[in-house]
Amino acid sequence: MAVTEAERRAMDRALELAVRGPRGVNPQVGAVILSPAGDIIAEGWHQGAGTPHAEVAALSALAPGAARGATAVVTLEPCNHTGRTGPCALALIEAGISRVVYALDDPGEVSGGGAARLRAAGVQVDAGERADAAHELIADWLSAQRLGRPHVTVKWAQSLDGRAAAADGSSQWITGADARADVHRRRAAADAIVVGTGTVLADDPSLTARDGDALHAHQPVPVVIGARATPTGAAVRRHPHEPLFYDTRDLMAVLADMQARGIQTVFVEGGPTLASAFIAAGLADRVLAYVAPVLLGGPRLAITDIGVPSIDAARRLVIDEWIPLGPDLLAVAHPTASEPHSEGVR
Amino acid sequence: MAVTEAERRAMDRALELAVRGPRGVNPQVGAVILSPAGDIIAEGWHQGAGTPHAEVAALSALAPGAARGATAVVTLEPCNHTGRTGPCALALIEAGISRVVYALDDPGEVSGGGAARLRAAGVQVDAGERADAAHELIADWLSAQRLGRPHVTVKWAQSLDGRAAAADGSSQWITGADARADVHRRRAAADAIVVGTGTVLADDPSLTARDGDALHAHQPVPVVIGARATPTGAAVRRHPHEPLFYDTRDLMAVLADMQARGIQTVFVEGGPTLASAFIAAGLADRVLAYVAPVLLGGPRLAITDIGVPSIDAARRLVIDEWIPLGPDLLAVAHPTASEPHSEGVR
Ligand SMILES: NC(=O)c1ccc[n+]([C@@H]2O[C@H](COP(=O)([O-])OP(=O)(O)OC[C@H]3O[C@@H](n4cnc5c(N)ncnc54)[C@H](OP(=O)(O)O)[C@@H]3O)[C@@H](O)[C@H]2O)c1
Ligand SMILES: NC(=O)c1ccc[n+]([C@@H]2O[C@H](COP(=O)([O-])OP(=O)(O)OC[C@H]3O[C@@H](n4cnc5c(N)ncnc54)[C@H](OP(=O)(O)O)[C@@H]3O)[C@@H](O)[C@H]2O)c1
Repeated sequence: MAVTEAERRAMDRALELAVRGPRGVNPQVGAVILSPAGDIIAEGWHQGAGTPHAEVAALSALAPGAARGATAVVTLEPCNHTGRTGPCALALIEAGISRVVYALDDPGEVSGGGAARLRAAGVQVDAGERADAAHELIADWLSAQRLGRPHVTVKWAQSLDGRAAAADGSSQWITGADARADVHRRRAAADAIVVGTGTVLADDPSLTARDGDALHAHQPVPVVIGARATPTGAAVRRHPHEPLFYDTRDLMAVLADMQARGIQTVFVEGGPTLASAFIAAGLADRVLAYVAPVLLGGPRLAITDIGVPSIDAARRLVIDEWIPLGPDLLAVAHPTASEPHSEGVR
Repeated sequence: MAVTEAERRAMDRALELAVRGPRGVNPQVGAVILSPAGDIIAEGWHQGAGTPHAEVAALSALAPGAARGATAVVTLEPCNHTGRTGPCALALIEAGISRVVYALDDPGEVSGGGAARLRAAGVQVDAGERADAAHELIADWLSAQRLGRPHVTVKWAQSLDGRAAAADGSSQWITGADARADVHRRRAAADAIVVGTGTVLADDPSLTARDGDALHAHQPVPVVIGARATPTGAAVRRHPHEPLFYDTRDLMAVLADMQARGIQTVFVEGGPTLASAFIAAGLADRVLAYVAPVLLGGPRLAITDIGVPSIDAARRLVIDEWIPLGPDLLAVAHPTASEPHSEGVR
């Protein structure tokens, strides 16, 4: 059966509902229950790990029996997996739902197979409606699933000749106001913002995403990596979110822990040592180099050593965009496919 | 009197004639003598230091008395200065020229004043016709006069993170074919191409301007600066032009000597030590940074030290253009006005 106009509208609504849920360990999902006449009789969304899935949340808003013969419209294929909650496919069958329209197939090996189970129980299933929008909605989550870690952006600011600061360490301001505003916008779009202890001790950054003096609505979780202690009075300790501290140099372990905490995207802001370590480990899915029209020379390099002994081992990049920002230029790039860990990266 | 159509055409012709002469210590100048009816009766151009100026060359093609009542059309104000030849203004007066149309005022303190002398002798003078084209023709010469040295372009190729080579010194090819072709075109447009002894000893470059395997029509004079000897078998010794060797680190002295040899524009191709020395000395009028989308890290810096202790002393650049060249990006820039030696630079 073709997807009806009412189902289409319901899917748009389900996509809206999905984003009410938090970004986290589970994907954001929205669901709408339509009466046989095509009216919305219930809505639901997933509110995070340990809470009911979206379609179950919607069903639970209905009186017993009220879903009989109804249609469930869901942004993600109903799961077929018994976790903290039972499989959604079963819940829909038991509620007497006669038709399910969903957007995106569940990519999970354990959770997939819901559509087949529904069909086997005689439920009509239509897949793929608004699949692109539903994919975009949970693209970061899907990427983290694929990579087994959050998506990592490594950002730095440099002079044209690749310096992070002048010989005496002074660096304010290498880049201009437009570049700095761009950094804050991108911080606000990330789940976490990561620095090394060197930067915390040298700069005492607040690691907030700001628009002028105002805080952006979304704030990334601040993360500090390294053995040295962060002073009790450090600005990062006054961040709206409790900072995460990792006393290790094992970046993959740090990322895995972050993923377990529901962090899907990470913005690494340096300093040079930590940024270079991420690149050397093949853990930079995207790099952002803000290049200022200035020459500095000297020893303070924006990128230090990344384990490239010879030109054949160069970390080749694909430049997605060169973005002019006032007098500065931002290179947005990703490693070429020959790089470790880069396959499948957005 | 307004400039006539015939005089206008004669000026275009004079501009064509001018470029037959060599670029050198003197500016390129062309001249045409028109009969009172407006027909071309003689042409001339300056063939280089020690030979007659353009207007005198044109006059000398005429029988005695044949220039009486004629009009001289010249790309540069006739000189008023007795050098190896007498002042052109006087020669024109003595030949009986009744009108002079010229494009550009002579900026020279010694040679200027020709127009006033002509007028004082009753010759009609019209200045400014095609001044822009005439200015462009000798812009490099004018710039060298102003600076007291040739115009210097410092070029280098670098990874995004500012490296000239990988840790082991390998660098072929950081930049791609389009960037290399661009370098060769720009070499062909320069009067001289300069490298340090370090580059000669490491790379044995030919310092020719090539289009594939073919040589460009114009070849810059190859120049090597530094104390170490260039081997007898070095490729630079097989260059179409005899190389210039300067056993010194005094770059201003090198440039002054080059100017005395008629070199107006210099293309400094490195390596890193020499390029940085030019920048540190404030002797880079233009920089060309070919940036490849690759990260290298490590110790081989494209720019080493340029004497910037603190961020306030940063060598700020104005980027004239960012030019995409295949996967690479060329930054064409000049120092901001606060830089030494940058005032008046094209
Ligand atoms: N231009 C820019 O974009 C930019 C951005 C940020 C900072 N900065 C500047 O950078 C300077 C600080 O530089 P930095 O390089 O010392 O700072 P950093 O990269 O922030 O910190 C380096 C520290 O990170 C820890 N770390 C964690 N994982 C590591 C790993 N896998 N490998 C190596 N180290 C690891 C180590 O700390 P422990 O020794 O404590 O274990 C290491 O000493 C400051 O002056 C700051 O202003 C510039
Ligand atoms: N990426 C690029 O665009 C590029 C371009 C060219 C070369 N390279 C690479 O650069 C490497 C060579 O580097 P390099 O820095 O040794 O070469 P270099 O800059 O060509 O030569 C350095 C030498 O220049 C002489 N010199 C002349 N005037 C000087 C001054 N004012 N200050 C300092 N030195 C002066 C000195 O020679 P004396 O000691 O003999 O007096 C000095 O040792 C090679 O591996 C080459 O492949 C890269």
